[in-house]
Amino acid sequence: MLSLKDAIRPTTILEPEKLRSLLGLDLVVISETFQHTGSFKFRAAYNVVLNRPESEFVGVSSGNFGQALAYACKLLDRKCTVIMPHNSSKVKVDAVRAYGAAADLINVNEVSRVERLEQLRRERPDAYMASAFDDRLVIEGNSSLGDELVGIGLDAVVVPIGGGGLISGTVEAFERTKKPIEIIGAEPAMANDAARSLKAGRIIQNDVEPQTVADGTRTLSVGQHNFPVIQRGVKEILEVSEEKIVAGLKLYFSHANLKCEPTGALSLGAVLQDPDRFREKRIGVIVSGGNVDADLYARLLT
Amino acid sequence: MLSLKDAIRPTTILEPEKLRSLLGLDLVVISETFQHTGSFKFRAAYNVVLNRPESEFVGVSSGNFGQALAYACKLLDRKCTVIMPHNSSKVKVDAVRAYGAAADLINVNEVSRVERLEQLRRERPDAYMASAFDDRLVIEGNSSLGDELVGIGLDAVVVPIGGGGLISGTVEAFERTKKPIEIIGAEPAMANDAARSLKAGRIIQNDVEPQTVADGTRTLSVGQHNFPVIQRGVKEILEVSEEKIVAGLKLYFSHANLKCEPTGALSLGAVLQDPDRFREKRIGVIVSGGNVDADLYARLLT
Repeated sequence: MLSLKDAIRPTTILEPEKLRSLLGLDLVVISETFQHTGSFKFRAAYNVVLNRPESEFVGVSSGNFGQALAYACKLLDRKCTVIMPHNSSKVKVDAVRAYGAAADLINVNEVSRVERLEQLRRERPDAYMASAFDDRLVIEGNSSLGDELVGIGLDAVVVPIGGGGLISGTVEAFERTKKPIEIIGAEPAMANDAARSLKAGRIIQNDVEPQTVADGTRTLSVGQHNFPVIQRGVKEILEVSEEKIVAGLKLYFSHANLKCEPTGALSLGAVLQDPDRFREKRIGVIVSGGNVDADLYARLLT
Repeated sequence: MLSLKDAIRPTTILEPEKLRSLLGLDLVVISETFQHTGSFKFRAAYNVVLNRPESEFVGVSSGNFGQALAYACKLLDRKCTVIMPHNSSKVKVDAVRAYGAAADLINVNEVSRVERLEQLRRERPDAYMASAFDDRLVIEGNSSLGDELVGIGLDAVVVPIGGGGLISGTVEAFERTKKPIEIIGAEPAMANDAARSLKAGRIIQNDVEPQTVADGTRTLSVGQHNFPVIQRGVKEILEVSEEKIVAGLKLYFSHANLKCEPTGALSLGAVLQDPDRFREKRIGVIVSGGNVDADLYARLLT
């Protein structure tokens, strides 16, 4: 049974010359696209499964957390069920099944994901209901990425925000060091609940899941466990237009040879929106994951 | 002035779980897509410029070698001219110019690249005419990639072949160790001059540049310096269909989150063509580079 540190792959740190010259910035790309299951979520999922005694795990996800939980359960020999909308892409359903988990497909017009989770909670009282972001173990798992960034001399790091799990982990990792850096969030403007929450001093929810192209951030709000950490350690949350998210994805392709998913391009999108904000600093941008359907990617590229 | 070892970026070594399970192979991906200028060619170009006394370099390339030579000259403060067909893609011409080199655009219907090189050789007798593959310094530069592979316990490595510079370097790197491995070439079936040469025991030329999708291998023949090394150290050259090259590129996208150019997918294409050839072995596939136009890439993906 591997420790978290031994189970994860070290992140991939790139300093792409073409992209750096184009922007005129001392930019460091921190890519989790080659992490197990293709996103940082594996760090969280593995840490949850490793530290919980249950023999069965249930998660709700049509995306990266589902694959990460499935693979963590496979490695640690636990049962796993992932609740997914019945119209999830075949690629994603197949990926969850390939990691040995059951895909519990629900018609979201008939039953919400939360309702289905409650049903399963009642049916399977011994299973652990794993949140993709609102869990201390998730934050702790994600902080392993922050730990890897401590040595590379950043002045600031831009981190995508959905439920707030990754940025909370980043805050906690840098709190453990004697070298704090500026931690900046990046959120789609059309899913700006975290930015509004930070300004208001309390968690504000979106009414419906915002249909941003950055589908990893289609959450209703940040988590209860995450918000105080964000309040403590995040200086600012930048709101990024859909256009800049796509521009970021295209620049990674053309100027860094990096394939990423739209959510992964959010932090670069934030930089593109206001490059002057980042002059004369060594800044890191975290690419949260790389899983994207070929059709969508091809459409965004051209 | 950095040594070769300090100037290059270490290669990126990936063991993508999804791809490995799909193929049922112990596959290690060795990617040069994040090398300076996006391909292994930087290793060769830097070594040439570093070790030649001339203050000016001329190369012929519409692709990766041009960018690599331009950037090496920029780093080492030399003048650089890259001869390119006048219909080269704007992206490639711009890249060469962005590295500070002159792009010498020729109409290939009026003057061949070789003729233009001879013209420049006469006009600029003090410049070094840099070959992309047929040069001892190129082989030596490329051997730095082989050196990085020595420690990872491969039984075999599959290497793309165009002019033969990369595979010659790989052979020489492993000759320096006490742990030889099986070195296998991968060449497009429609540009199989190296495979035919190896069988015939002498260099055989293509009549015209073969129009394979793997445009990095559109050479007329392997180099004079490369062929004896290939004869000495390459066990076999596999001939890969265009279809399998594209299948490799798509699998890297979907199962490894790796963006590569068609030539970069040649070695995986060779494996796809005959996976049983590689069972029960730890095999490396070298991804030579990642530079590809967005339009072409999107078309190949879908």
